[in-house]
Amino acid sequence: MDKPSLPKGTRDFGPSQMAKRYFIIEKIRSVFQKYGFQPLETPAMENLETLTGKYGDEGDQLLFRILNSGDFLSEVDEANLVQRNLKYLSNRITEKGLRYDLTVPFARYVVMNRHEIALPFKRFQIQPVWRADRPQKGRYREFYQCDADVVGTDSLICEAEIILMIKEVFQSLGVESLGSKDSKEPYTIKVNHRGILSGLAELAGARENESALFVAIDKLDKIGEEKVKEELRSKGFGAASLETVFEILNFQGNTAAKIELLQQRFAQSEKGMKGVNEFSEVLELLKAYGVNEANVEFDISLARGLSYYTGCIFEVKINHVAIGSVSGGGRYDNLTQAFGSKERLSGVGISFGIDRIYDALEELQLFPREAQIASKVLVCHLDSNCLRHALGVVNMLRQNGIAAEVYPEEAKLKKQLEYANKKLVPYTIVLGSEEIASGQLALKNMQTGEQSNKAIQEIIELLK
Amino acid sequence: MDKPSLPKGTRDFGPSQMAKRYFIIEKIRSVFQKYGFQPLETPAMENLETLTGKYGDEGDQLLFRILNSGDFLSEVDEANLVQRNLKYLSNRITEKGLRYDLTVPFARYVVMNRHEIALPFKRFQIQPVWRADRPQKGRYREFYQCDADVVGTDSLICEAEIILMIKEVFQSLGVESLGSKDSKEPYTIKVNHRGILSGLAELAGARENESALFVAIDKLDKIGEEKVKEELRSKGFGAASLETVFEILNFQGNTAAKIELLQQRFAQSEKGMKGVNEFSEVLELLKAYGVNEANVEFDISLARGLSYYTGCIFEVKINHVAIGSVSGGGRYDNLTQAFGSKERLSGVGISFGIDRIYDALEELQLFPREAQIASKVLVCHLDSNCLRHALGVVNMLRQNGIAAEVYPEEAKLKKQLEYANKKLVPYTIVLGSEEIASGQLALKNMQTGEQSNKAIQEIIELLK
Repeated sequence: MDKPSLPKGTRDFGPSQMAKRYFIIEKIRSVFQKYGFQPLETPAMENLETLTGKYGDEGDQLLFRILNSGDFLSEVDEANLVQRNLKYLSNRITEKGLRYDLTVPFARYVVMNRHEIALPFKRFQIQPVWRADRPQKGRYREFYQCDADVVGTDSLICEAEIILMIKEVFQSLGVESLGSKDSKEPYTIKVNHRGILSGLAELAGARENESALFVAIDKLDKIGEEKVKEELRSKGFGAASLETVFEILNFQGNTAAKIELLQQRFAQSEKGMKGVNEFSEVLELLKAYGVNEANVEFDISLARGLSYYTGCIFEVKINHVAIGSVSGGGRYDNLTQAFGSKERLSGVGISFGIDRIYDALEELQLFPREAQIASKVLVCHLDSNCLRHALGVVNMLRQNGIAAEVYPEEAKLKKQLEYANKKLVPYTIVLGSEEIASGQLALKNMQTGEQSNKAIQEIIELLK
Repeated sequence: MDKPSLPKGTRDFGPSQMAKRYFIIEKIRSVFQKYGFQPLETPAMENLETLTGKYGDEGDQLLFRILNSGDFLSEVDEANLVQRNLKYLSNRITEKGLRYDLTVPFARYVVMNRHEIALPFKRFQIQPVWRADRPQKGRYREFYQCDADVVGTDSLICEAEIILMIKEVFQSLGVESLGSKDSKEPYTIKVNHRGILSGLAELAGARENESALFVAIDKLDKIGEEKVKEELRSKGFGAASLETVFEILNFQGNTAAKIELLQQRFAQSEKGMKGVNEFSEVLELLKAYGVNEANVEFDISLARGLSYYTGCIFEVKINHVAIGSVSGGGRYDNLTQAFGSKERLSGVGISFGIDRIYDALEELQLFPREAQIASKVLVCHLDSNCLRHALGVVNMLRQNGIAAEVYPEEAKLKKQLEYANKKLVPYTIVLGSEEIASGQLALKNMQTGEQSNKAIQEIIELLK
């Protein structure tokens, strides 16, 4: 048969990538748990009625559908089959799909388990999702999402805690330790509020057309002010409207000055005023935690696309690399509505992009040497008798909690040391008949080449 | 819309199940790593040419296939469509499937990355697999496998280390601590060797029909000796053959006596002799590690179905519960052959069944109270001023590494305490204006009800 291959857009993660991914995931998970979030896992397959209609028409197109087992044509009628009616057929021959994100399964879980759940419900979920997107650099058909959400409370304390969690994550990943460069902090948490954008739309006389404004503003980073204005003009925004909007978007000043400006301008806009006041309250709450605003930037032009957000929105950028946002989230109004639940469950969530964080840490050389998963020591041996003796040595090391291996075959020492090097094992012990007789084992540091003879107990103390 | 539901045979894992699953997985993972195994993850979807033909016809039927994106009928001709040729159609409208186990993707990975891999290659892999089986109690369509394999060496040290790993796993899960009951050890590692079964077939004059013997013996546990004999008779085994086979299978004696018996009987059987000698060597190696044979049982009737094993085979049972085997594995001869690789890569592996281990630990009440993932303390508050003050308290706790939460809304104390109870949070701190003024916070142990006033520093020392 042909050399095997992977489906396009998918990847294997070998030992060294896995070690780095564990490093990231464990740091994030431990922050989630420190803030009281609890783990949830949902199945890879969901019923299509759970998935469809939740991600727009484009999203529905990108769902991976599972062919029904057995006679998958049994529900298909002749006419539609012969006419190759794809939409009809795909709905008859498939009833399950792979999950597209973690939010919809979370909402489904909440509705199905509403009576066992303690509200506010704080869950985190770290699992792969699948999208039949056209694969390209940095975009995969299978990738992990890493989400934390609180549902069942409107309290802005949740927004403040999301900012605190983001700070702890980038601190524990070592990003904060990079310090500022070109007067830029190592990372920035951009915050805005959908109410502020609604207020802007009202000021521009476009209350009915606010989504056009959101979509256009969202592109400022990519296409620049002129092209955004052009787009808005084509959507019916007049010169005066554009001037009002861009005067505010381009306002230079610190956070306090921006808040003051908006509070003045939004005197007549209930939504806008609510937005700026909620944002301002989140900053006050941070102070009550005893945490300063470092790394937090009030970005009035942050829009986060056409998603279901209704309150504060967040986006995180690592400034010392040319990689898009590595984390994002916000408050949404009604998580479970799509599943017919009448109870209004507001929530706020944050999602970390493992793949982009991985690329950023790699580029910034932030993975510690310990972020590799290999034995601490390889026990090598010079003949069959030494090999048998090595088994007792490796067992003693393991009994003391030290990850250890013995090269499992008689082999030239060179080959054994090559194995240690290839696996990045930091120490080797070489057992010859002399060492066995004297009880002084030869310990070698594979990085420095340094070598010394030590009793096994000494070695255990050193490597523990 | 209707109340949402899950596809049959799939499950959500909520916080308390997840905590217990983490407990199991972390114990197993840490044993794997201590023995020098490194992590691998492969994609959920594989090309169908990777999957089909590897699991027999029945396995091929149980693959979940992914409908191709876009115009999935474009490769389908008129005649086959109208005739509803299911086999033809399913091969034209799908090209990917969900992985069915972790071994085939591992073999595919080894072939694709042969030149970067250090042999012997020791990998572990903990991921879900999918099978379109008829769901029933204890059998799911999505379930985790948890595998460790070494490939690229024939050394029996690997077999010995698998036994050591199994022992460490059931020790660290607390199963060993249960002690013997009804003169049965808490768990048993049954070991046999395929060569011994081949030897039996030779003694029975059924060298060409050994798989019939394996399949029948495999059922001894379930259907008993008489039915197995009946099955063998129907496959052409004569009375003398059956007597020879069952005399050996029913031989009562310790391991040394069984080995002696087999060495006598296999004087003319090369395969049988190799099998018994290899098994015996594995036991010798255990001694060289300084480990005794406790929990290891030589079971000549262990067959492990019609799988690809060629050497030692293993199966683990927890004796104090009525649950089937919780772990199994063995040596196979040629991992990568199915992918056209000419290099012979022998390997040996072990697989732990997370779902069954979960059920067993639950029944044996072996999950420690700490095997839940919740905050250690909930900070409660009596009014809005106290709530604001609580934010500083919760931040101090977290800065000291203590998982802590604040109830995020003003609410009756009763409601806050209920939240703590429902989430199994073991401690609460109640902040009133008196406590704030005095600096002596009321710490309550939610299990015992015990309550005491302490300064925040004392609380931190206590909970750390």
